[in-house]
Amino acid sequence: MKPTGPLPPHFTAASDGQLVIGGMPVNELIAEAGGTPLFVYDNNIIGSQITRFRAAMPSGINLYYSVSANSCQELLQFIGRYVEGFRVVSVGEIERLQRAELAGIPMTFAGPGKGDSELEAAIRAGATISLESEGEAERAIAVALGLGVKPKLAVRVDPPFSIGDDGSECTVAPNPFGFDADEAPAVINGLIEADVDFRGMHIFTGSQWLDTDALIKVHHQTINLAGQIADAAGIRLPELNLGGGFGTPCLQGEWPLDIDRVAKALCDSLRDASDMLATTTLSIELGRWIVAESGVYITRVVDKKVSAGRTFLVTDGGGHHLIGATGPFGEPPRRNHPIAIANKFGAPVEEAVTVTGCLCTPFDVLGDDVGLPAAEPGDLVAIFCAGAYGLTASPQAWESRPLARELVV
Amino acid sequence: MKPTGPLPPHFTAASDGQLVIGGMPVNELIAEAGGTPLFVYDNNIIGSQITRFRAAMPSGINLYYSVSANSCQELLQFIGRYVEGFRVVSVGEIERLQRAELAGIPMTFAGPGKGDSELEAAIRAGATISLESEGEAERAIAVALGLGVKPKLAVRVDPPFSIGDDGSECTVAPNPFGFDADEAPAVINGLIEADVDFRGMHIFTGSQWLDTDALIKVHHQTINLAGQIADAAGIRLPELNLGGGFGTPCLQGEWPLDIDRVAKALCDSLRDASDMLATTTLSIELGRWIVAESGVYITRVVDKKVSAGRTFLVTDGGGHHLIGATGPFGEPPRRNHPIAIANKFGAPVEEAVTVTGCLCTPFDVLGDDVGLPAAEPGDLVAIFCAGAYGLTASPQAWESRPLARELVV
Repeated sequence: MKPTGPLPPHFTAASDGQLVIGGMPVNELIAEAGGTPLFVYDNNIIGSQITRFRAAMPSGINLYYSVSANSCQELLQFIGRYVEGFRVVSVGEIERLQRAELAGIPMTFAGPGKGDSELEAAIRAGATISLESEGEAERAIAVALGLGVKPKLAVRVDPPFSIGDDGSECTVAPNPFGFDADEAPAVINGLIEADVDFRGMHIFTGSQWLDTDALIKVHHQTINLAGQIADAAGIRLPELNLGGGFGTPCLQGEWPLDIDRVAKALCDSLRDASDMLATTTLSIELGRWIVAESGVYITRVVDKKVSAGRTFLVTDGGGHHLIGATGPFGEPPRRNHPIAIANKFGAPVEEAVTVTGCLCTPFDVLGDDVGLPAAEPGDLVAIFCAGAYGLTASPQAWESRPLARELVV
Repeated sequence: MKPTGPLPPHFTAASDGQLVIGGMPVNELIAEAGGTPLFVYDNNIIGSQITRFRAAMPSGINLYYSVSANSCQELLQFIGRYVEGFRVVSVGEIERLQRAELAGIPMTFAGPGKGDSELEAAIRAGATISLESEGEAERAIAVALGLGVKPKLAVRVDPPFSIGDDGSECTVAPNPFGFDADEAPAVINGLIEADVDFRGMHIFTGSQWLDTDALIKVHHQTINLAGQIADAAGIRLPELNLGGGFGTPCLQGEWPLDIDRVAKALCDSLRDASDMLATTTLSIELGRWIVAESGVYITRVVDKKVSAGRTFLVTDGGGHHLIGATGPFGEPPRRNHPIAIANKFGAPVEEAVTVTGCLCTPFDVLGDDVGLPAAEPGDLVAIFCAGAYGLTASPQAWESRPLARELVV
């Protein structure tokens, strides 16, 4: 049997063994949603993550939710009550916020390849645009002029450092994101001269950070870099967006970030920072860390069979809904997300099985050689840590299969 | 500069340098479709692939098109005129055929995890069901009994062999597809006793074969295995579905299959086969091989920038439409599909650039360090070999970006 990732600590079993999510047993959730495959998101888990963030971090920090992690409308509505704003990367994401009645909330709009129509939509929505290049800066200013609006513009800087898994510094490969650091002071001064609403800097270093020391080092270097650029430009930054990338443990051997230690080190770094940052509002944009643990993906066992001596549970779900759990179609090494039989939650392990989805590819594995209570067709499989980069990251049209249902509790 | 895959030989340039697809210059195609990103599929290329297949293969062979490769309705309508049937793996695919007015055409329905409602829809549609397990066989018979229909059932056998890239035999891992070969004779006799419309066997060995010798070996072994099973069962097989998996070269160093040699070896294998296969209809199911080269993905350059000394063209497309060209978000090693500046087609190489999509991930690379004519924002990038496993295999909801357009010419 192979190991699985750590089960998030938020879930219990009803007396009949049904997994309970947000106070409701899984069979009732399925009845309410109308069937499987089903994503259930528990708002309370999201709320408690945001509370943990607030409790740890210095007051006055802006928390932006990254819509790309999960853009389910009901989740956006809930999250909108507790964050300072949203991070969007497309007009589609702006429209999702508008449909969730969040049109007036602050937004930062990042991402390479913003077209003129996208810049126009973002400026109309009042978003702060993280500029990725000289050409984009010119076009944003021209679009705003046409609209008769002073655009909110920030300068995205591609950090010249990155921190590897072992805490050592790595060279950063060229990439389409932001300006090289040495160009940034001139770009900032150009924006000031163009009389835009200059909103500061955006420095995004990576994603899915789980190494607390590495993240602390990245924050420290980012604040230093921002200070150097602000000094060189001779400009006090209104805002410094540190990016995000706080990870969530989903796989065996992964451990949660120590958010309290991250926050304390951030305070230390800020105390030593350039005077040009003394009045700067700090912001952090988080997606996965806020929503990943809130989500459970529920599928139903359709078939049980033995192939070459190994037992398989074949379900009605798969990588077309949760590609992160199956592994991106062949990327080695695939590792197991936490998994359970959702109508026998907490029951003892009785057999080693491989749980697959229904797709016609050998890569559609939800649990490889995992220990579970005995299950038969009709039983339910739960995959945890399914709240972030599920449906939006998955090839939902693969094999023209039914879409997954979503339920917020 | 890094190499790219071989440019398919079907495309020419108009006198003004516009790439011509199906007789139309790319700027007119974009105008007709209403913009970029755009997939253009050329029916003539699909037709000539089917003609090549017919010319090479023994007469009487059934060709089934695998809908999963590309389920664009207009393509299905075109292909339906030239093939004996379709291979489907979901009710959604059956419905796509019905919408394309192909409801009456023969279908084979394969795939693990078929639910009762799927079995019912497939039996109603007259599909031949490739049975994947004992449990599925029982359920299919029960469903057909309920409908008062004699179901068309075939036995899918998981081959106990596979051929590696170097032509050597590999061990096959346990998987959810089909029956173990030693169970097959008893299963076949059970179906005959149950008085179903027994349709023979389905043996699928792999996909994206590009090694002619390996494919020949696989066909030979498959026919031997089918003969052994038919002998053991004492049953003449009505049909033997050899699966498909003919590959298309998309990457550097890949060469096309020698289909004539595959066909000749198939005839040899059939001549030596068990008498129980003497009256068997042979079928092959192909997706990628039929449609891959017909498709071109057209994106527009939105930004040109330099990062750490490297020049980037940022486009309005990306891996949310054609994940196979960008590499499944991080799977190493990513290699370049054939790529061109579509409004300067055939012009000399002037610069080395990295062409990216618009997604907020460093993996969204359409061409890594490729040599192209000089291009600026507004110019067009074409990615070739984009006709198979494009939209359906890609995370189209990623970052809530616009869907790609599709045009059949």
